[in-house]
Amino acid sequence: MLIVGAVLLSSTAALADEAKDSLRDLALEAFKPLPAAMPMVKDNAITPEKIALGKALFFDPRLSASGVFSCNSCHNLATGGDDNLETSIGHGWQKGPRNAPTVFNAVFNSAQFWDGRAEDLKAQAKGPVQAGAEMANTAEQVVRTLNSMPQYVTWFKGAFPAEADPVTFDNMAKAIEAFEATLTTPTPFDAYLNGDREALDETQKEGLQLFIDKGCASCHNGVNLGGTGYYPFGLVEKPGADVLPENDKGRFAVTKTADDSYVFRAAPLRNIALTAPYFHSGKVWDLKQAVGVMGTAQLGESLKDEEIDKIVAFLQSLTGTMPQIVYPVLPAETLSTPRPSGEIRQ
Amino acid sequence: MLIVGAVLLSSTAALADEAKDSLRDLALEAFKPLPAAMPMVKDNAITPEKIALGKALFFDPRLSASGVFSCNSCHNLATGGDDNLETSIGHGWQKGPRNAPTVFNAVFNSAQFWDGRAEDLKAQAKGPVQAGAEMANTAEQVVRTLNSMPQYVTWFKGAFPAEADPVTFDNMAKAIEAFEATLTTPTPFDAYLNGDREALDETQKEGLQLFIDKGCASCHNGVNLGGTGYYPFGLVEKPGADVLPENDKGRFAVTKTADDSYVFRAAPLRNIALTAPYFHSGKVWDLKQAVGVMGTAQLGESLKDEEIDKIVAFLQSLTGTMPQIVYPVLPAETLSTPRPSGEIRQ
Repeated sequence: MLIVGAVLLSSTAALADEAKDSLRDLALEAFKPLPAAMPMVKDNAITPEKIALGKALFFDPRLSASGVFSCNSCHNLATGGDDNLETSIGHGWQKGPRNAPTVFNAVFNSAQFWDGRAEDLKAQAKGPVQAGAEMANTAEQVVRTLNSMPQYVTWFKGAFPAEADPVTFDNMAKAIEAFEATLTTPTPFDAYLNGDREALDETQKEGLQLFIDKGCASCHNGVNLGGTGYYPFGLVEKPGADVLPENDKGRFAVTKTADDSYVFRAAPLRNIALTAPYFHSGKVWDLKQAVGVMGTAQLGESLKDEEIDKIVAFLQSLTGTMPQIVYPVLPAETLSTPRPSGEIRQ
Repeated sequence: MLIVGAVLLSSTAALADEAKDSLRDLALEAFKPLPAAMPMVKDNAITPEKIALGKALFFDPRLSASGVFSCNSCHNLATGGDDNLETSIGHGWQKGPRNAPTVFNAVFNSAQFWDGRAEDLKAQAKGPVQAGAEMANTAEQVVRTLNSMPQYVTWFKGAFPAEADPVTFDNMAKAIEAFEATLTTPTPFDAYLNGDREALDETQKEGLQLFIDKGCASCHNGVNLGGTGYYPFGLVEKPGADVLPENDKGRFAVTKTADDSYVFRAAPLRNIALTAPYFHSGKVWDLKQAVGVMGTAQLGESLKDEEIDKIVAFLQSLTGTMPQIVYPVLPAETLSTPRPSGEIRQ
């Protein structure tokens, strides 16, 4: 009897192990761990020189007309890669239209911005620099600014050695993209996908199971658990205008297709626990509430509190280890550097 | 003859050496090199825990009401410890009244702000956090914000282990002061004062001689070449209202003494080549022009171009090596963290 009991016990354990592995197998169908190697980006070979230049540019407030805002202002690497505001405050204290997404792991999104209007990070980087409500600068003035500082010219030459005139707006964007490609944050969930069964606790595993079973993973999948497909916000039931303001029709503005009204890119979920408030409107501060809204709006299901708690526990396993960033020492302005101006262009 | 010649040569060299040493002796009467050890500050023992906490606080935009500005916004460690604006832009896009001074080596100033109204860095740190045109926060809200994040509470306990309730506005200021005390930047001029004759080139030595002979060192002396005494701006001849705006009477606002009208603290000159624009008004962008203005306004002397060039060459020897700062990873907000607000208090 004792022997049989032991066999039974061990076979129960085996079954449990198998169940665990089948969860992991299921997860591997929907998700991918962070790649072990530095990600490749299109038309932009990533070199140490480009990364170093890109880091300087990312932190340089002189890319903005006012001298107040850098990329890091709204995509703050100290606070989850975003600014934790509903929508960002920019030039002239103007409020941006949408919540700033995190820059961490953004290289794994198939396109950038909530409406996917930039195909990659180098296209994205040019947007806020020139947006009147953000950094309010012009490409010409950025190039003048960078050319006015000999150290920057040297850095651009090192990063783009084959080019006769390397200080360009395009190359600024490429360098920023190269730096941003280094901003990846490995998580317990990656360890789990890579075979460490103990990297998630039981509640997180139950949350993962629910995340798959309930259908969350239909949109939030791949390396970033999102960031690739476009879906109507309110697929089943439109959320209230507080969460989904009527004047922002999302991807419609990009494609001019009626079907794309209120369509947004599924938010990538890595570090989601660090990047409240949620949604493109930034109107929801509580991750539990955000999961609940997704349940009703996208899945047509009122998730139970207990289910939401488990899913949130799983989402917390997506909080990653931040890369160590040495704060750059930037070149000093010269007399030919364009002067900062806080004036608001009309 | 040859031997006599050699003796003459060697005695000429000895004379030149003596002259050089007498310049160094003269310099040592007016100036002090950076101390080799971490500076002490009053009533605030500097510990690694306090420095680490102070660094987090220094970079944390959640010390501002809007969530937009940190100490580092206006005292940017990437750009010489200041913001390179005439006067800073703060909450609600308001312009501050005076040029932001560098935080580097500020621990060696005998008092803080252009009018010396804060006796030390811990007193200073509380000012901008609460100023309506800067970070626009309140002490109470800062404490609520910090208490809402368990990681901060743990850090405060580690930094102030003897205190039952360590998360206070005073301790925030003390931790920031501890971090700022580490922000010192050794220069070629320090090496020269410490005995390395070759640390300054000949032009810089001539500039140093002029800086002493012309009387600059009467006000700009000590460790920071300034930052200790108070002097009327326009001691001999008042500069124009563009450089010295009439509505800012400087230290008069602190002491209410008529003698203190248009009196300001002599600017500390370490890293001056990195921290344009100059003067409390921030109206002069060219260091040469600033030296010229000082000549006429304070010394009653029109310095020759050649003299100005030499003095500027000397001032460039005050550009220091920046400390390496690892950008902090800050605690995430919780649901009890006060929400950021960009609204302007009336």
